[in-house]
Amino acid sequence: MYFSSDNTGPVPDEILAALTEANQGYAAPYGADPLTAEVTRRIRDVFEAPEAAVYLVALGTAANALALATLSQPWQTIFCSARAHIHEDECNAPEFYTGGAKLTLVGDDDKMTPQALRLAIEAEENRGVHGPQCGPVSITQITEMGHLYALSEIEALCAIAKENGLPVHLDGARFANALVALNCSAADMTWRAGVDAVSFGGTKNGLMGVEAVVFFDPAHGWEFELRRKRAAHLFSKHRYLAAQMAGYLRDDLWLRCARRANEACARLVGGLRGTGVVKFQADPQGNMVFCSFPRAAHQRLAAEGAMYNMTFGKIEGDDPDEMLGARLVCDWSISDAQIDRFVALLVN
Amino acid sequence: MYFSSDNTGPVPDEILAALTEANQGYAAPYGADPLTAEVTRRIRDVFEAPEAAVYLVALGTAANALALATLSQPWQTIFCSARAHIHEDECNAPEFYTGGAKLTLVGDDDKMTPQALRLAIEAEENRGVHGPQCGPVSITQITEMGHLYALSEIEALCAIAKENGLPVHLDGARFANALVALNCSAADMTWRAGVDAVSFGGTKNGLMGVEAVVFFDPAHGWEFELRRKRAAHLFSKHRYLAAQMAGYLRDDLWLRCARRANEACARLVGGLRGTGVVKFQADPQGNMVFCSFPRAAHQRLAAEGAMYNMTFGKIEGDDPDEMLGARLVCDWSISDAQIDRFVALLVN
Amino acid sequence: MYFSSDNTGPVPDEILAALTEANQGYAAPYGADPLTAEVTRRIRDVFEAPEAAVYLVALGTAANALALATLSQPWQTIFCSARAHIHEDECNAPEFYTGGAKLTLVGDDDKMTPQALRLAIEAEENRGVHGPQCGPVSITQITEMGHLYALSEIEALCAIAKENGLPVHLDGARFANALVALNCSAADMTWRAGVDAVSFGGTKNGLMGVEAVVFFDPAHGWEFELRRKRAAHLFSKHRYLAAQMAGYLRDDLWLRCARRANEACARLVGGLRGTGVVKFQADPQGNMVFCSFPRAAHQRLAAEGAMYNMTFGKIEGDDPDEMLGARLVCDWSISDAQIDRFVALLVN
Amino acid sequence: MYFSSDNTGPVPDEILAALTEANQGYAAPYGADPLTAEVTRRIRDVFEAPEAAVYLVALGTAANALALATLSQPWQTIFCSARAHIHEDECNAPEFYTGGAKLTLVGDDDKMTPQALRLAIEAEENRGVHGPQCGPVSITQITEMGHLYALSEIEALCAIAKENGLPVHLDGARFANALVALNCSAADMTWRAGVDAVSFGGTKNGLMGVEAVVFFDPAHGWEFELRRKRAAHLFSKHRYLAAQMAGYLRDDLWLRCARRANEACARLVGGLRGTGVVKFQADPQGNMVFCSFPRAAHQRLAAEGAMYNMTFGKIEGDDPDEMLGARLVCDWSISDAQIDRFVALLVN
Repeated sequence: MYFSSDNTGPVPDEILAALTEANQGYAAPYGADPLTAEVTRRIRDVFEAPEAAVYLVALGTAANALALATLSQPWQTIFCSARAHIHEDECNAPEFYTGGAKLTLVGDDDKMTPQALRLAIEAEENRGVHGPQCGPVSITQITEMGHLYALSEIEALCAIAKENGLPVHLDGARFANALVALNCSAADMTWRAGVDAVSFGGTKNGLMGVEAVVFFDPAHGWEFELRRKRAAHLFSKHRYLAAQMAGYLRDDLWLRCARRANEACARLVGGLRGTGVVKFQADPQGNMVFCSFPRAAHQRLAAEGAMYNMTFGKIEGDDPDEMLGARLVCDWSISDAQIDRFVALLVN
Repeated sequence: MYFSSDNTGPVPDEILAALTEANQGYAAPYGADPLTAEVTRRIRDVFEAPEAAVYLVALGTAANALALATLSQPWQTIFCSARAHIHEDECNAPEFYTGGAKLTLVGDDDKMTPQALRLAIEAEENRGVHGPQCGPVSITQITEMGHLYALSEIEALCAIAKENGLPVHLDGARFANALVALNCSAADMTWRAGVDAVSFGGTKNGLMGVEAVVFFDPAHGWEFELRRKRAAHLFSKHRYLAAQMAGYLRDDLWLRCARRANEACARLVGGLRGTGVVKFQADPQGNMVFCSFPRAAHQRLAAEGAMYNMTFGKIEGDDPDEMLGARLVCDWSISDAQIDRFVALLVN
Repeated sequence: MYFSSDNTGPVPDEILAALTEANQGYAAPYGADPLTAEVTRRIRDVFEAPEAAVYLVALGTAANALALATLSQPWQTIFCSARAHIHEDECNAPEFYTGGAKLTLVGDDDKMTPQALRLAIEAEENRGVHGPQCGPVSITQITEMGHLYALSEIEALCAIAKENGLPVHLDGARFANALVALNCSAADMTWRAGVDAVSFGGTKNGLMGVEAVVFFDPAHGWEFELRRKRAAHLFSKHRYLAAQMAGYLRDDLWLRCARRANEACARLVGGLRGTGVVKFQADPQGNMVFCSFPRAAHQRLAAEGAMYNMTFGKIEGDDPDEMLGARLVCDWSISDAQIDRFVALLVN
Repeated sequence: MYFSSDNTGPVPDEILAALTEANQGYAAPYGADPLTAEVTRRIRDVFEAPEAAVYLVALGTAANALALATLSQPWQTIFCSARAHIHEDECNAPEFYTGGAKLTLVGDDDKMTPQALRLAIEAEENRGVHGPQCGPVSITQITEMGHLYALSEIEALCAIAKENGLPVHLDGARFANALVALNCSAADMTWRAGVDAVSFGGTKNGLMGVEAVVFFDPAHGWEFELRRKRAAHLFSKHRYLAAQMAGYLRDDLWLRCARRANEACARLVGGLRGTGVVKFQADPQGNMVFCSFPRAAHQRLAAEGAMYNMTFGKIEGDDPDEMLGARLVCDWSISDAQIDRFVALLVN
């Protein structure tokens, strides 16, 4: 019963097979191999963006920090949600990579609203050299609290950014989960809505550690390449990143994994609702649930080895009815049996 | 009628005299001159801190950024008010000097409360390597909105910092104004309360451009010296910084200037109150007033050349009674006549 | 006939097997998995250093830059060879990671001599705050030109560093090739000689992309962990780094790979010597050869698809006898047949 | 007998007078005052560059580091002499301000030759992302060893830079000394020769601490303004920088000071030659002499309080005839009497 995160499960066999297949003979280093070229084409196809600049890195934080550094200047501020991964979970990587840019937190929630973004931008304008200058807007889709932006919401945020001449980055660590939830195309969720650069996540959706950075304007490409090399994120044996990504895209494995994770989560939510003792903090929309349920249930689950993060409250305590918070994450590998057992333990 | 800022007036004649006096013959460069040694001793005396490491720089932002960089690590976050100069008015200088540390805004006001500070620190703890690590606490005395921290308030903030093992920096751009307002000693307002490093401002209180950085633990000294040199803030002809500071401290010129500025402000506040048309955003406590009064009065003042910053509303407009915001700052050089004329214009 | 680099060949089957084996069920992320713990122990055993702090990253440049940043300050200079990878091939990664430290090139060769190191250190001493401060010494073993430092040479360099209070880093991208060439222990080549931190390379010796950083003083550990996370080099699915390293160390695979590469190189050198037309720039000691031979031979090799880097001269040209430079690198996977065919083509 | 440096003497009375004159009433801060506007015009006139972007800072290192950071990228290398101030005497300020750019030392001397510059650039080209990218060329006029570049030499260096698309910076800490030595115009020595940005020094030639940065292409202006503010080099009471520069340029004070310093140096050199015991390391061309003379003479000079830097050898020692090195610097304030006495002491 592993619901801790979508970075704790195994990878699909197809990924290991792709690595094995790629492990033949000589391959030019640093991305000059044919598999990298093929993967680049495939990602351009996915995004319907034949000119896009596409790069692979191994970590989502690297993808975010390098993309944002490429889009910003050190004297700017990046607009993001107060719960954004780039703010809360990257140990100042964006500040490091940008050379000291600031992050301006837009609103208090995990989703930015257009109004809050507009206010945040206006507060930084007309400050001359004194305040930070306005820099990129970074949107997390799916958010760190498991929420989806509708296409219209992404469009509205991008429209405000564009009015102010600001580029837009999309942190898509759970890009595929969002895509299957919205049932839209990758182009719709990105450049058609106004997004300039995407961190196209693979690691949380079944890869060992591969993400793509996509710039729809290839003019950013060379600077990104230099930043990636300087930051020690350019793999010499690049074929092994490319192989994973190739396996991920082949036969829609990436969409199948995401669909499975979202369906598992829906099953879990359905089960949790059925218990009558679970309160949901928000409507679950992807592969994550934030909810609360009584201490006694937490204790039963813990005794049986269920793994997940508690978001508030302490499992030790006298009151068996006190509601304690949980974050439950499903990945592609979770079985219905695990879900059902988790739900069953929750009620008795 | 100059109320724009305390960086727009002239310097006292004593400062020019001190420069002239220092301008004799040879002096060793980079702070190795006797006048710098004398000033160092004098500042240690002011702070009753015979071991303190004392350094001169020309700008308040340099003092703040260098002091904070010395007290922090790039993967930390600095706790400060949402209105702190280091956050709003230094174009990312703290982020630049620290190598990418973050600033965590404590509460929404210009003064931090102990409760808000405690919450902010707790929110960053126990994040392992994922979040930023807790770094220095920076207190602005007098705040950017003209408010004073009582000694007990500084002590309370320092106590929380100490409980968490965090150093405390005091941004004293208006240190002297605070000191005469509190009628306490420099030691009381700093190390006795728990402060580790001070930006001891001179520029806003009558100098051309000199600030001292004081570390009560001299172990920070050598690192600061290297940071100052590397940042191009070590003057070769250092005697001209030292001369200004010597003139500033001689015969309590610094305290006389600050007293005069505060008294001028009190006279201004008294006059404003007497008009019956001024609303004060907060109780004025130093040399700055944040208030609002009707558009018609703003227009009359502007027509007569009064200089000050508007904080909200636009002077153009139809409604003569609409209340528009103003920040009024008094420096040592403002005359009673200017104040009285300002007040007189405000009422008719 | 692939002699371009030791980053262009496949990985041994054992590495893929180790990945497959590790790909079972749930594993705690970010290095909290049992396999990472096991690998840490194994590396400590290899180095006979039970207290050492050991970390995995994916790239050699990351290992070098993070290790050096941990050992240095931004106002220092790092002493290294004029041909060091950290100087020539990392696109300013050390400068980026250290926050702007300088690199001082010691001598003109790929190997630093004790005399040259002593002179370089002395030139930076007694400069007060004006020059950079002396920082770590970085030794590359095997050098970028394929040369070995004898143990006595490493000891002599470390002794000078220690006299001056400077830490020593060893860039061991080809650590295993050096070890089998010297036929000594890992401890002899590092801490017993005075080395403080090692980049223990795996990628050039058969891994997809895994290196370990080893600090013999574990006090450096926590800072390194924060630097690694901030730089986006902490893998969430860390087990896949650990698995590769586990496979690498199991049954001495790492030593077998290195031995094979060195033996292949010796066979190549023997063959080249036998031709009578090859000049060696230096005595080959590991798995790399720098040499020159006539244009006509280069042209024959190119026509047959031999891959290697030319170090000087142009393959197009009229004079068939002009000597042109080549760098030939052997990895574990090169076959005797390839070597022999290469040699055969060279002579006719 | 003060020959230590041109940063140890007093400032001309005209500078104090200019400060006094400027110290009247209110002045808009941060460079928005009329005196700054006037000085900007005057400097444009000096350079015959009516569109130039002109900024004041207080220190030469700030001028250099900010100008170079504006012209470069963090992944580039800056080409400069092995004896350049930016390399030897700024404690890594260029590395700090550029965000980690490298400095490539061109040749071994204080003057770069066109051939050496061409070789240095070629060595960095065609490295793809692996090496640093080629960045600005920085020329020091007068060099740190007191040598002048002829106009044709500056032109030749700039021509090579331009062929390679690289911008050129001129470190003019002793700009005026060079100008009067070459007897040319400021335009000739800079943009007409191909220079893009100048650090126009004032401090070593009589100011307390003011330098101008001049960009002949004003497109660099806004970035420079942001960099200056972020680095805490934008003075709030900017009029006091402007006043000094105004006094410096008025009635050619700057040229008179430089001429006097150069003439004093020529008198000193003449005197030294006359003694028959002085060896000159190079032909003195500005206001600095590098030479050597016997220990006994050093001892006599020291006994009488002569101040200067020794460049090699130790004053304590048995052999009275051993030649020991000296750097002798003349500033505007040195008297003929001091010079003559120095020379007299040298011979007996």
